[in-house]
Amino acid sequence: MNKQFKLIKRPLGEVQASDFEVSITEIPTAHEGELLIKTLYISMDPAMRGWMNDAKSYIEPVALGDVMRAGTVGKVIESKNPKYQTGDYVVSLNGVQEYAISNGKGLMKIDTRLAPLPVFLGTLGITGLTAYFGLLRIGQPQAGETVVVSGAAGAVGMVVGQIAKIKGCRVVGIAGGKDKCDFVVEELGFDACIDYKSQDVRKALKDYCPDGIDVYFDNVGGDILDAALSRLNRGARIPICGAISQYNQMQAVQGPKSYLSLLVNRARMEGFVVFDYAKDYISAIGEMAQWMQAGKLKSKEQVVEGIDNFVDTLGMLFEGKNTGKLVLKVAED
Amino acid sequence: MNKQFKLIKRPLGEVQASDFEVSITEIPTAHEGELLIKTLYISMDPAMRGWMNDAKSYIEPVALGDVMRAGTVGKVIESKNPKYQTGDYVVSLNGVQEYAISNGKGLMKIDTRLAPLPVFLGTLGITGLTAYFGLLRIGQPQAGETVVVSGAAGAVGMVVGQIAKIKGCRVVGIAGGKDKCDFVVEELGFDACIDYKSQDVRKALKDYCPDGIDVYFDNVGGDILDAALSRLNRGARIPICGAISQYNQMQAVQGPKSYLSLLVNRARMEGFVVFDYAKDYISAIGEMAQWMQAGKLKSKEQVVEGIDNFVDTLGMLFEGKNTGKLVLKVAED
Repeated sequence: MNKQFKLIKRPLGEVQASDFEVSITEIPTAHEGELLIKTLYISMDPAMRGWMNDAKSYIEPVALGDVMRAGTVGKVIESKNPKYQTGDYVVSLNGVQEYAISNGKGLMKIDTRLAPLPVFLGTLGITGLTAYFGLLRIGQPQAGETVVVSGAAGAVGMVVGQIAKIKGCRVVGIAGGKDKCDFVVEELGFDACIDYKSQDVRKALKDYCPDGIDVYFDNVGGDILDAALSRLNRGARIPICGAISQYNQMQAVQGPKSYLSLLVNRARMEGFVVFDYAKDYISAIGEMAQWMQAGKLKSKEQVVEGIDNFVDTLGMLFEGKNTGKLVLKVAED
Repeated sequence: MNKQFKLIKRPLGEVQASDFEVSITEIPTAHEGELLIKTLYISMDPAMRGWMNDAKSYIEPVALGDVMRAGTVGKVIESKNPKYQTGDYVVSLNGVQEYAISNGKGLMKIDTRLAPLPVFLGTLGITGLTAYFGLLRIGQPQAGETVVVSGAAGAVGMVVGQIAKIKGCRVVGIAGGKDKCDFVVEELGFDACIDYKSQDVRKALKDYCPDGIDVYFDNVGGDILDAALSRLNRGARIPICGAISQYNQMQAVQGPKSYLSLLVNRARMEGFVVFDYAKDYISAIGEMAQWMQAGKLKSKEQVVEGIDNFVDTLGMLFEGKNTGKLVLKVAED
């Protein structure tokens, strides 16, 4: 049978179990040109919260009654498509369900020699690509510059900081809690990390970025964005990747009160969406895989087991409970 | 004698007469290499409010006790500098006073055949240059795109809209009151103008920008910036020129609540300061003068007489009482 999480209510604030209906149906059948994929891992992403809202965005909202959208790693268990064979591993957007049919479009085959499967939802997947293109194309860091990244111990942030190090930058992370800060400094090699739960972020940015901020990669929005704006260098770049502090807001989003720092410092704040760079995914993943093999880019995944834990696991992102890429393990390979 | 307005208090909110001391001193004497300039017109600019604050900005604050900084058009009445002759007209930053000594640096000689003197503080001066570089370098409008400009009837906005028309764009202004809107549409040729005092700006932007906004040139900040953010096209550019709605704020600046539209639309918000383009001033003024001579670029100045009216005249900017470039006439030529 196929267990599916269908979105039946648009969440108000935090996502609740009652926003979903769990349905159990027959495992679908692959017709000519199609393949049947068994879900092994489901990606947990802050962006999923936005997909649940009925608002204009870079992607259609999930329709009420539809299986909740999510990135997945799965295994082809039946193929009537000549491009895929039984036993292939693929990344796709199969959503929160145990099995899915695909016509073969929008899939990416996984080279399992490169890394364990969950990594293809993280560092060698959409979150790693988000870090790669957001930092390199929008942030455009130059050797010797100071790069600050919020959500530093999260799936995107940890990759941003490491790529910035590879590019010769001074890298300061911002994360919640000593464990996360220790992780990015000691295990990933960031130059420093600010614990926003115990430190005054403005003061700490002054201390840890004595030469100011050239690139601030923002995953969180809110007060931390304001603090970073107040320390910009002339010509600074702020890639806007997300604003996790604001996604469950019931009231209006908190706008950056310090945005006129953009004027004073001739700086720019620019949004991006990783999907726009799809034609360059393969080469980017190739480069990141090389960095991993050379030991310059480390990956970390936090795996929670059981599709039944979907709602609580998603909630962990907004409570800051994950370190590294959070994935839900649905089935043994 | 030389009447001077010296800043003696940092204003809280609106500028008050008591923030200045009017001092009357001897007319200074030009020494070797110097020239004595008689002030004819003083430029009234929203940016002057920021210069009065003791805050890090793109230029040093005016020191307490110093003559208030301001752009000026003046006439050389005595020269001991070989580059200037008695009778030359020059633009400089001589401040709010009737006479000033200059060493010849930072002056720009005026070609009085091109336009009347006050125009060199406006369309062929710093405000025109601000419009020119902010729109063309930061906004990068393409023919056929929709350009929206706030403060549309102000010194910068009126030039922004006209240059955008020259570049083949659809141009929608936002201004306060029917007279200003009529001015930019009927006299300057904007395609439409939204009266923020009588219209719902969000709704009007929807009506007047059926194809969305590609460039939003912001002079005002606040709710109007938010309204424009909500109508951006993919890849839109927002040059941040100023935020006149916020300059007298006693509390924190109002940040743009809709800034995540930058993400959804892969758009960018970028600050700039006209002084950075100084090496290209001459060619820009040459181009704008040609447009003026061809009748494609019109200028408007609003002249108030008497240096004694300085504080009230400056206040007109923040009350939205000016149409076109506001200048204070200090002396007859």
